[in-house]
Amino acid sequence: MAGAAPSEEALRRALAERQTAVDAQADAVRSLKASGAKEGVDAAVEALKALKIEAGAAARRLQAAVGSGGGAAREEMRQTVVNTLERKLFYIPSFKIYRGVAGLYDYGPPGCAVKSNVLAFWRQHFVLEENMLEVDCPCVTPEVVLKASGHVEKFTDLMVKDEKTGTCYRADHLLKDFCKDKLEKDLTLSPETAAEFKRVLAVLDDLSPEELGAKIKEYGIVAPDTKNPLSAPYPFNLMFQTSIGPTGLSVGYMRPETAQGIFVNFKDLYYYNGQKLPFAAAQIGQAFRNEISPRQGLLRVREFTLAEIEHFVDPEDKSHPKFVDVADLEFLMFPRELQLSGESAKLTKLAEAVSKGTVNNETLGYFIGRVYLFLTRLGIDKSRLRFRQHLPNEMAHYAADCWDAEIECSYGWIECVGIADRSAYDLKAHSEKSGVPLVAHEKFSKPREVEKLVIVPSKKDLGLAFKGNQKMVVEALEAMSEKEAMDMKAALESKGETNFQVCTLGKDVVITKKMVSIGMEKKLEHQRVFTPSVVEPSFGLGRIIYCLFEHSFYTRPSKSEEEQLNVFRFPPIVAPIKCTVFPLVKNQEFDDAAKVLAKELTAAGISHIIDTTGISIGRRYARTDEIGVPFAVTVDSATEVTIRERDSKQQVRVGIDEVASVVKELTEGQSTWTDISFKYPSHIGPQGDQE
Amino acid sequence: MAGAAPSEEALRRALAERQTAVDAQADAVRSLKASGAKEGVDAAVEALKALKIEAGAAARRLQAAVGSGGGAAREEMRQTVVNTLERKLFYIPSFKIYRGVAGLYDYGPPGCAVKSNVLAFWRQHFVLEENMLEVDCPCVTPEVVLKASGHVEKFTDLMVKDEKTGTCYRADHLLKDFCKDKLEKDLTLSPETAAEFKRVLAVLDDLSPEELGAKIKEYGIVAPDTKNPLSAPYPFNLMFQTSIGPTGLSVGYMRPETAQGIFVNFKDLYYYNGQKLPFAAAQIGQAFRNEISPRQGLLRVREFTLAEIEHFVDPEDKSHPKFVDVADLEFLMFPRELQLSGESAKLTKLAEAVSKGTVNNETLGYFIGRVYLFLTRLGIDKSRLRFRQHLPNEMAHYAADCWDAEIECSYGWIECVGIADRSAYDLKAHSEKSGVPLVAHEKFSKPREVEKLVIVPSKKDLGLAFKGNQKMVVEALEAMSEKEAMDMKAALESKGETNFQVCTLGKDVVITKKMVSIGMEKKLEHQRVFTPSVVEPSFGLGRIIYCLFEHSFYTRPSKSEEEQLNVFRFPPIVAPIKCTVFPLVKNQEFDDAAKVLAKELTAAGISHIIDTTGISIGRRYARTDEIGVPFAVTVDSATEVTIRERDSKQQVRVGIDEVASVVKELTEGQSTWTDISFKYPSHIGPQGDQE
Repeated sequence: MAGAAPSEEALRRALAERQTAVDAQADAVRSLKASGAKEGVDAAVEALKALKIEAGAAARRLQAAVGSGGGAAREEMRQTVVNTLERKLFYIPSFKIYRGVAGLYDYGPPGCAVKSNVLAFWRQHFVLEENMLEVDCPCVTPEVVLKASGHVEKFTDLMVKDEKTGTCYRADHLLKDFCKDKLEKDLTLSPETAAEFKRVLAVLDDLSPEELGAKIKEYGIVAPDTKNPLSAPYPFNLMFQTSIGPTGLSVGYMRPETAQGIFVNFKDLYYYNGQKLPFAAAQIGQAFRNEISPRQGLLRVREFTLAEIEHFVDPEDKSHPKFVDVADLEFLMFPRELQLSGESAKLTKLAEAVSKGTVNNETLGYFIGRVYLFLTRLGIDKSRLRFRQHLPNEMAHYAADCWDAEIECSYGWIECVGIADRSAYDLKAHSEKSGVPLVAHEKFSKPREVEKLVIVPSKKDLGLAFKGNQKMVVEALEAMSEKEAMDMKAALESKGETNFQVCTLGKDVVITKKMVSIGMEKKLEHQRVFTPSVVEPSFGLGRIIYCLFEHSFYTRPSKSEEEQLNVFRFPPIVAPIKCTVFPLVKNQEFDDAAKVLAKELTAAGISHIIDTTGISIGRRYARTDEIGVPFAVTVDSATEVTIRERDSKQQVRVGIDEVASVVKELTEGQSTWTDISFKYPSHIGPQGDQE
Repeated sequence: MAGAAPSEEALRRALAERQTAVDAQADAVRSLKASGAKEGVDAAVEALKALKIEAGAAARRLQAAVGSGGGAAREEMRQTVVNTLERKLFYIPSFKIYRGVAGLYDYGPPGCAVKSNVLAFWRQHFVLEENMLEVDCPCVTPEVVLKASGHVEKFTDLMVKDEKTGTCYRADHLLKDFCKDKLEKDLTLSPETAAEFKRVLAVLDDLSPEELGAKIKEYGIVAPDTKNPLSAPYPFNLMFQTSIGPTGLSVGYMRPETAQGIFVNFKDLYYYNGQKLPFAAAQIGQAFRNEISPRQGLLRVREFTLAEIEHFVDPEDKSHPKFVDVADLEFLMFPRELQLSGESAKLTKLAEAVSKGTVNNETLGYFIGRVYLFLTRLGIDKSRLRFRQHLPNEMAHYAADCWDAEIECSYGWIECVGIADRSAYDLKAHSEKSGVPLVAHEKFSKPREVEKLVIVPSKKDLGLAFKGNQKMVVEALEAMSEKEAMDMKAALESKGETNFQVCTLGKDVVITKKMVSIGMEKKLEHQRVFTPSVVEPSFGLGRIIYCLFEHSFYTRPSKSEEEQLNVFRFPPIVAPIKCTVFPLVKNQEFDDAAKVLAKELTAAGISHIIDTTGISIGRRYARTDEIGVPFAVTVDSATEVTIRERDSKQQVRVGIDEVASVVKELTEGQSTWTDISFKYPSHIGPQGDQE
């Protein structure tokens, strides 16, 4: 690399390396302690402290550079990445030949491969590791389900219309843009006005339609494209609506999330799991959001893949047996207090965050840790990943606690995974709407004595008094709350009779003493019946993948130093293609050997491409670096080949019949490149010289 | 097994075994011949003939049994399978707690795992093996795309309405049911009427709305539920319609197939592939069909997963370099002639079908062969799989040839994969509608001389004559066909002027000699520009999986012979869970060993369940046989365990630290159970006795 001042890129790598060193040393300390060794422990702890200080310094250096760097550099970096992504068909604006549709994108071949690798790893990391119950439900969803979940009423954004052209805008976006623009560009603002704009930005999400409309009027905000006046803001439901079946009478929506499919199946899944809690169900699938006016490219789209987990747990016991496995992880956390006091995210040990109550419970903490491991193993930069707690105004009233995994990219900090303890809200909503109890049972080891209200209507007397209405009266009596029943008991005892409202009859009836007996009885209970709480980690796959593209991208000079070459440093599990096969020169023998090798790679399930174009090896390397292929196999004999690693450009010599198994080990993670470079002779040959 | 007359099941297995023997012997003959050996060839060929005769006899025995068996047995068998599938949550009617929606189903945990295994194998077998370009496009599709494809106009079924209640029915279904019912149950039918009903059934798909309506009227068919009169049939579009964005002006549909997403990306994909043909693109994803009144359970649904391949090929060269790899496959083919002459499908060698022209071309033949391998490797029974050619009336006018892979299940023969040579239809339709040429180029090694029509309008003279209309006239002149142009040339030469109709002006104009020069010129052409043909294998995943469930299901008596136990004989790649781990008895040591083992299985990516319930091993085996788990590991020591294979119930003893790698080999196909049972000591211990 050219000897300039360290780039933001270089500073990030330095920080990431130091953080990895801290992690490794912390592991070492733990295993030393676990082994019961006494010698060396203190020294190891001291070394850990020193590494942490170094990491802190690296973080500060980076922060300084980013702070001074500013928007233009980020914009430029984004353009370079996005150009590469589009040119290499990582993604394609959907229906491009018809000028596309805002907010819809295709994954082209390498993008599609990255997506399917990320999903496969997600299944391994979550579903397999935790024995989750995976389900697969349709996108088309009848209205009743989304009424119960609240989406029909509340899944809305506030919209304003250009009063002349009918063009639609998100009301909050217009107000936000106006305030930001003023704050950035209007140097004549009085301190009071500036403070007012800042206040508006802070409370933007909490404004009612009326308040938003008033602000838009007050500031004289008009349609950005035409300068025409705007309508008052009104809620627009973001679900794509459709009609199920031919009659037009059955309203359906394209699901806005996959979670509801799991909730409505809770009862069956609970039985499938042997009626034991906790257990988790998971679903991967498409979800839809009919955005008013999508912006932010791949981050704000109208159709996307979600991967959601619903972990059902006893609300009285949210401990997690595997929490110890993640307790020692340390990463950037951004709890409520730090946000409210204007500080930034801090490196925090997960165990501490849970024990101090910053994170509500162990189960929530366990998933935060697992999400951290998932994202960083994919290649997300640790220094640009933070867990931010929802502020009270962001959180639904029923939620116990919510944290978002936010990843920093050129658009700022982006919410990529939401991890919420939603309490019993969803199951209760569907129980009520459907009439099917979605509950769990805890069998007591020995029965417990409890006091219970017992209401026994006398069907004979009620029948004589109410004839055909008897059933309605019986049901109303049985449905009384404890307080209503005890009030009635008192009235009957004192007056012998009482008025009683029967809703289903729409009138009051007179109940006499002999018609019903009411009392509190001591009973033995054999089990507890309760609605489980649910902890929900919800992954926006597209956003994670876009951030991964940005974090994986770097440029380096070509050998001649005449141009900058693009590289994606995808880890092998993510890389769209695991290896390339190049015959060194055009030559029948090498071509044949390459073909045999390709067959072996296919049999081993390793995606690869052969490039027999015969252009310079350096050019061929550059082409595949640009789509992040980690390993390149150059065939220059019928018996032995060279394997080159993308980022280090190191090469080793390997027997041709070993190649498939070596690449398989590398891509499945049984071996690292370091292992391989120790095991096989390194190579600095003609093809190395060409880079 | 009980010693009854051989069941249909047993006969099927016998046939499948014989077919496998034929395949193996055919392979042996081929390799003998390839090796140039002379000795033994004749004997091997004789052996092959004998095996084929045996296979034929087995097929006849089965046919006889099935013929006499009839509908009731099938219905019963289906009920047993479907009960098991629902009880074990292979699938669940969607939104069950809200009484469901016809035609929508969820995959529960084992079903979801089977689906994701089938998809992974599909990717390995097609995408990886052929280096296909996989893409991933949205379900929401703007109207213009589906207008170009013809779906807006033609993706319809004919519907009739109950004139009083508004209930909708598929018109052809009502007519079909009526005729079938009459033919089956009305013993008083005259031979003429019976013949008439049979004719109607045969031409059902070709009837116009008017003809269908006339028949319904003639036969006096009424609404089946209410006996009310029916409306005239009218076309109902089967796409789910929605609106993109907030204005309500942009119509969209949920895609009816995934193919269109590939066609509209042809240009980019062609460049991505280095502008070389042939290449294939593939897509897996949801597709939607708003059925009028879904029946046939899992086979006729409103949302389903499709896996589609579009193989683009030069229309002048549809050979396939890898056709040799499948040429010797022999399976049931049902070409047009056999269907029309009332015969049944015949065992046919693929090479013969292609060389005789029964199958239109090698590329189509190659994919038929690959589909056969895909389905049979999944576990589809060879004797219940046939490739049926479309009759002329079933095929779109532009299609060169179409074959359906049909699988026989309790509903009859079901179309599960369509393999069509769609010629250049789709690319041409999108080229026209979008104005973007979707073409390929063949560069000539040396330029070729061709005669070309050259029309040069004189813009100056046309401008003087037509002023503002000049552009329209120029365009009309340039768009003349060769014949029109040569006619004009002749007229201009003889008369000096001629009338010329300009459609865009809506009138004739007078063209004089000096306004245009027309001639044939010899030109050197450096390349050929053409629209590729597309061969499209399109897989209905849900149907394949349902048939697989039926083909994999069998029952066997429990050890006590008191009950029939259900088993799914899924091959390891398909099985939802690869192995179970049972501690033999409740005991801390065994439990701990089982946990360590489970961790190793997870690390190896092998899905498994631990059952520590301590109920009898026989019971635990039965439970997991019922979801098709192929291997069960019983932990009865801390160092060595027993592995039991599901179908043979054989057991071997394996060191506990080898288990994960043995199961991995078995499930990934590197070893068969036979290999393992040779390598490790067999075991007939207490757990074996309990079955």
